[in-house]
Amino acid sequence: MPASAVDEYFQFLRFPSISTDPERAADVTACAAWLGEKLTAIGLHTEVHATARHPIVIARNDHQAGRLTVMIYGHYDVQPVDPVELWTSPPFEPRVENGVVFARGATDNKGQIFAHILGIEEALREGELPVNLILLIEGEEEIGSANLATFLSSHREELRCDLVAISDTGMVAPGVPTLTYGLRGIAALEVRVTGSAMDLHSGIYGGAVANPATAIARLIACLHHSDGRVAVPGFYDGIPVLAQWEREAWAALPFGDAEMAAVTGAPELVGEPGFTSLERTWARPTIEVNGIGGGFQGTGTKTVIPREAFAKLTCRLVPGQQPHDVVEKVKAHLSSHTPRGVRVEFLGGHGAEPYYTDPHSKFGQAAQKALQEAFPGRPLALIREGGSIPIVNTFKEVLGVETLLLGLALPDCRAHAPDENFPLENFHAGIRLNRALLAALAAAK
Amino acid sequence: MPASAVDEYFQFLRFPSISTDPERAADVTACAAWLGEKLTAIGLHTEVHATARHPIVIARNDHQAGRLTVMIYGHYDVQPVDPVELWTSPPFEPRVENGVVFARGATDNKGQIFAHILGIEEALREGELPVNLILLIEGEEEIGSANLATFLSSHREELRCDLVAISDTGMVAPGVPTLTYGLRGIAALEVRVTGSAMDLHSGIYGGAVANPATAIARLIACLHHSDGRVAVPGFYDGIPVLAQWEREAWAALPFGDAEMAAVTGAPELVGEPGFTSLERTWARPTIEVNGIGGGFQGTGTKTVIPREAFAKLTCRLVPGQQPHDVVEKVKAHLSSHTPRGVRVEFLGGHGAEPYYTDPHSKFGQAAQKALQEAFPGRPLALIREGGSIPIVNTFKEVLGVETLLLGLALPDCRAHAPDENFPLENFHAGIRLNRALLAALAAAK
Repeated sequence: MPASAVDEYFQFLRFPSISTDPERAADVTACAAWLGEKLTAIGLHTEVHATARHPIVIARNDHQAGRLTVMIYGHYDVQPVDPVELWTSPPFEPRVENGVVFARGATDNKGQIFAHILGIEEALREGELPVNLILLIEGEEEIGSANLATFLSSHREELRCDLVAISDTGMVAPGVPTLTYGLRGIAALEVRVTGSAMDLHSGIYGGAVANPATAIARLIACLHHSDGRVAVPGFYDGIPVLAQWEREAWAALPFGDAEMAAVTGAPELVGEPGFTSLERTWARPTIEVNGIGGGFQGTGTKTVIPREAFAKLTCRLVPGQQPHDVVEKVKAHLSSHTPRGVRVEFLGGHGAEPYYTDPHSKFGQAAQKALQEAFPGRPLALIREGGSIPIVNTFKEVLGVETLLLGLALPDCRAHAPDENFPLENFHAGIRLNRALLAALAAAK
Repeated sequence: MPASAVDEYFQFLRFPSISTDPERAADVTACAAWLGEKLTAIGLHTEVHATARHPIVIARNDHQAGRLTVMIYGHYDVQPVDPVELWTSPPFEPRVENGVVFARGATDNKGQIFAHILGIEEALREGELPVNLILLIEGEEEIGSANLATFLSSHREELRCDLVAISDTGMVAPGVPTLTYGLRGIAALEVRVTGSAMDLHSGIYGGAVANPATAIARLIACLHHSDGRVAVPGFYDGIPVLAQWEREAWAALPFGDAEMAAVTGAPELVGEPGFTSLERTWARPTIEVNGIGGGFQGTGTKTVIPREAFAKLTCRLVPGQQPHDVVEKVKAHLSSHTPRGVRVEFLGGHGAEPYYTDPHSKFGQAAQKALQEAFPGRPLALIREGGSIPIVNTFKEVLGVETLLLGLALPDCRAHAPDENFPLENFHAGIRLNRALLAALAAAK
């Protein structure tokens, strides 16, 4: 790596490319332009595409017939910096301490995507890339990638590829190469219960009318059995039995129930019987209440029967489940359990599908090999994650390809939080990872 | 009634004696002084007693041995006037429209207590009162009567009496004389549930830890059977069977289920099986959720597992129940139903006892006779009320006497709300009521 590489990484970090902030729009655009110039400078054909909001940067090498086409996806936009007073140093003035870079975007995603760019630069300096490459770097990931699907659809032919690779996920522990091959989907549903026409005095009317706060509680309570299993009929239908190799692989990871208890600070780990914490969060579906409310929220006592109450639910889904189907089953269950004397109304219901790609496919094995080269000497972690990454579904739906998730983020990288950081060690590993990945994928074709 | 009577009532109403507002303290004091002068002028021995906050006005006639001693209680303080912009005319400038007086305090309680005062004045002008009278008019009723119990205790000998009469409750309909002989008590309890050390990402951690919002819902759901009965063991212990005469009397009132449905706007009336709405609100205990909350309260979706959730409960109690005992039973029930993985904590637990006085006792019958004379030609309504009036318990505990509640307020009097009002017809009836009551009580001794 040339001495200037870290300097350039820091230049990239200095753009306050906060995509959600209208006052930073010019900084986001300037960051995209800088990125375009860098990619042109290393020898790629680069285009900065305007969208309805922030530009998408596309770069490619000279494609050759018969070679594998690999898309590497990343994003140059970052999260806001609030609460900025909790940062040890200014978020857009990168600082190195004990080999760790502190800055907004250091990990998410500037550090990870720039490591890939430097890997490509290195390869191009030595000769040519072993694959047809498409780099797609967007500026709206932190605000939901609103214009990405449209862009993919309208440039489907130019963006045709065999697979997508992304470094925007986590490693289970420092130095442990980690391939994420599954993500949970999501289905959101808000439940609103209304009763009387206005808040009522609970002394004068208590006993004669249904209480919406009590009703929403009874509805939430009907969602689970007392042992933690979801009680909605058909909720678990179609979910394949967890593979034995997955259970064994996860049991061997350096993160288990003890670590889960420590990181959450929960009094006790609880969940669906018959599964470990990792199995419950990575491979089993849930219904969680994200918010519940109704009636008096202040200090002390106010003797009312509230006129309404609500609960905001999200289900996390695993392969075999469909968001729309699950939402309909939950609605039907809640409707059939609605107490007398109140009306129930459902809002939302949008969702994202779960994702699973076989880590033992030929491309999966290539990714494993590359990760092992980037982080030598430590056993590889094959994991799923409990969250959702909607763009992975977008790539599958629009381009019809699988995505490999080769994360470089550490558990304590503080992405989205003050003092976000990225070790230079991981930055260097990312450069090695890019070179090894493209080589291994080319060989696997 | 002299022509000046309504003028004096309006003078009384013009004092903005808002007890909760520190900026109105001088107005409250001025109102007490004006009241003291009025009571002196009609021939009573009057004292205006300073307290830790607002004065208590005491007035008495010349007491004679062997006669019944009756305390009439009222209050000269009023509720705030916010939202003042919703008043049709300024709240402290009394206005008469179609025989109805509009002003803050018109009903609650200046109009009602001043009618008693005018009745006493009338009787004193004609001769002497038939009883030993103690008028106690306080200035802190709207802020919880904080100094009343202490005052009663420290003046117990001077305030010794045979019963208390209050006109501060409601009539079931215009023109219908109404005696309230029972009130529900109250027991308040806040339940807090905590789980993980901070809000957690519901994708990353959902399934591995208990959700406090789900847990509070399950706790609330365990409080009732699905048919509406309270499920707390022992909750109904000690409650006498509702008397047949009460059921029949209430069934004959011009306010029943249809009126309850209309006034609440509830989709359907529901409650404890086997009872009417009036029986449920007046003579059966309840557990109501006054507020429930936890997690995300804003618009849209935020995928968190909240670290905590709460519910604010109040139980309404009926004779046979004790606040402390009920709270302990509810706590024990909730503790035994607390889901694994969360901690539960209880706050509060204060309460007030239920009240019941026999409407067919000799004094009860005297009250009935007086009400019938004040509102001739309409059948008397014997009712209980669902709310609580703590001073009634204070009189019982400190002075050891029963209280008769002879209300003059109409259902649409808008007490505590904009455009509070009191018909001059009820004001005149109140004057008649006072004279008839003192005569009937003297005769009943």
